Amino acid sequence: MAGEEKAVESVRSAEELAQDSIAWATQHGLVMRLGGDSPQAAVIHAPMTLLPTPFPKEPFVQAVEVMPILNRLVDAVSRDSAFLKSVLSSAAQYDDFTANLLELNDATMASSRQTDSSEVVVGVHRSDYMLDEPSGKLLQVELNTIASSFGSLGSIVSQLHAHNTAQQAGMGPDGVPANAALAECVIALATAYNAVDLEHSVVLMVVESDEQNYYDQQWIASQLWDVYSIRTVRKTLADIASEGNLDDSGNLRCGDHCVAVAYFRSGYSPDHYPTSRQWDGRRLIESSTAAKCPTVAYHLAGTKKVQQQLARPGVLEQFLEEEDAFHVRKFFAGLWGLEDLSDPETQRTVQEAISHPEKFVLKPQREGGGNNLY
Amino acid sequence: MAGEEKAVESVRSAEELAQDSIAWATQHGLVMRLGGDSPQAAVIHAPMTLLPTPFPKEPFVQAVEVMPILNRLVDAVSRDSAFLKSVLSSAAQYDDFTANLLELNDATMASSRQTDSSEVVVGVHRSDYMLDEPSGKLLQVELNTIASSFGSLGSIVSQLHAHNTAQQAGMGPDGVPANAALAECVIALATAYNAVDLEHSVVLMVVESDEQNYYDQQWIASQLWDVYSIRTVRKTLADIASEGNLDDSGNLRCGDHCVAVAYFRSGYSPDHYPTSRQWDGRRLIESSTAAKCPTVAYHLAGTKKVQQQLARPGVLEQFLEEEDAFHVRKFFAGLWGLEDLSDPETQRTVQEAISHPEKFVLKPQREGGGNNLY
Repeated sequence: MAGEEKAVESVRSAEELAQDSIAWATQHGLVMRLGGDSPQAAVIHAPMTLLPTPFPKEPFVQAVEVMPILNRLVDAVSRDSAFLKSVLSSAAQYDDFTANLLELNDATMASSRQTDSSEVVVGVHRSDYMLDEPSGKLLQVELNTIASSFGSLGSIVSQLHAHNTAQQAGMGPDGVPANAALAECVIALATAYNAVDLEHSVVLMVVESDEQNYYDQQWIASQLWDVYSIRTVRKTLADIASEGNLDDSGNLRCGDHCVAVAYFRSGYSPDHYPTSRQWDGRRLIESSTAAKCPTVAYHLAGTKKVQQQLARPGVLEQFLEEEDAFHVRKFFAGLWGLEDLSDPETQRTVQEAISHPEKFVLKPQREGGGNNLY
Repeated sequence: MAGEEKAVESVRSAEELAQDSIAWATQHGLVMRLGGDSPQAAVIHAPMTLLPTPFPKEPFVQAVEVMPILNRLVDAVSRDSAFLKSVLSSAAQYDDFTANLLELNDATMASSRQTDSSEVVVGVHRSDYMLDEPSGKLLQVELNTIASSFGSLGSIVSQLHAHNTAQQAGMGPDGVPANAALAECVIALATAYNAVDLEHSVVLMVVESDEQNYYDQQWIASQLWDVYSIRTVRKTLADIASEGNLDDSGNLRCGDHCVAVAYFRSGYSPDHYPTSRQWDGRRLIESSTAAKCPTVAYHLAGTKKVQQQLARPGVLEQFLEEEDAFHVRKFFAGLWGLEDLSDPETQRTVQEAISHPEKFVLKPQREGGGNNLY
């Protein structure tokens, strides 16, 4: 009997597919910490669909193709501190978080580090989209430039989907594109690590002490070790403030470790800075020779306010070649700020939103998700 | 910088090693269900040592070498129903469980199945030992012939140990022998499946409905699918009694499935037979054409009473070549039964146990573990 014949038997019920998928996810580390009162080591499969969601090929390919341009855009914007300041100063007036980041960026720009061409910056960005109906256009919701998450678990979900479609009669595995997010994130961090080139150094992962999405982070640490023999150390911003210092060369030392790369999986929300200690930690990293993923400037370049400004006519063209700007603009959904309610355009937008609330989402200026009003 | 240089940095504290090992175990499916009030899908790493336990090579190699002989012994004993009956009839008088198994074996022997040379039997046996001090001898504690567990998780623990020793400066990975228990269990079941050769059939895994050690079982099911495209269906003995029947050819059908192999991961304890329905399920399997892992005869051959009898002078030689019997006997610790307290040898043993309780373990006749008195 050939395996193919038996595969016909294997058309599974949704319940069987769910049970098999839960088992597969749990066997392959597609998990999150259980949290609550359970032991810290307890986990449960991450939320997932059992099968891939059909998605039109053209906008998918377009999104893949535009990503390098978006990365160049973030880099170009991050280097224009005058632009960042002009765009964000009004937000900074009522938002201490943005004000602190701007201040830190100013200090960095004023320091010698900025003029040192050896500085290594790493961008691990996630651009989020929604497929608009009925236009069929893919519209960018936001571009994450700090602590972009679910690259690891997303890669494993793609493997699960390939596994499930291979088993499901009538669906081929060819339809599930490979998802290299985990591998490429690891390559990026390892490349930065090697570029910084410090003996016996580590990747410092800046984390929350109680992180439910631990395994999405851990897969990156595991792969850094397994593929590159690079060790990762997890610390909170408060840990870094307590244990960290800069040596004479400006290298960040944290406890016994010399830090080649600071990789943020925390620090993107005001909640992550309950006291000035956390800002001390951030400042220490920012002023060190460590490669930052990201710098404060990259962080600022990803704020909604900056994205809103970039969407205005002629602004993208300050940072990108005309052709690239044209490509990027295709993905821009409308973004409207509310800081100047006397502005006629803002008034028009607010009126439209009150009349047709179903067309709008109210998003905060900062990163983190889960803070939207529909 | 070479990876080797960096490995020197990686001598980890016990706490770091523990955290890394918990993460590794969770990423690689070395897990058990959390149980209790937690969601059924919640898991936690299996109990494990962080590093392999040093073990003398000679007894290890001897244990590996004697295993095929023990397997032949089980097979030979299982075919001698008169021997099984004579050894177990006294236990059957006060133990319904053993009585039911003996009765089922008698019925099987009396049926046409026994004379059908095409019958396929699969043994997945686990021989448990303790290293005796100060003799240095490896002594067999018991031989499990039904539902031998931890083959899968044991294999993954070996991978963890190889991983940890590779990272730990001063320890090489060569010292951790490969553990092929999972792979070989899967090969055994697949071989049986192919020998039975029924179109569109499945492996029926006989399980408890609420199984904490689910993933040790699931790895076998996953590998059967991934390597051989053989599907596994989980059913309790009660499910099988309800959904099962024999077709005209004596093939076991269970729901929509035709069963090529019945693989028991339950059924070894009286607790698994709360009503006669479970015995109905066992009987249905036993009387079918399905390959059994194990048959009732194999199950009986693994009872303590039989092992105790085999340890008596001259008994092994009824079933094995003299040279093989000599090898096996080296691993026999003393096993003493208590059913005849008037027997002078039993009286002597009991007196010795009362005087020196530290030398003895009181074990029940049946399988399952956890029922010992020290």
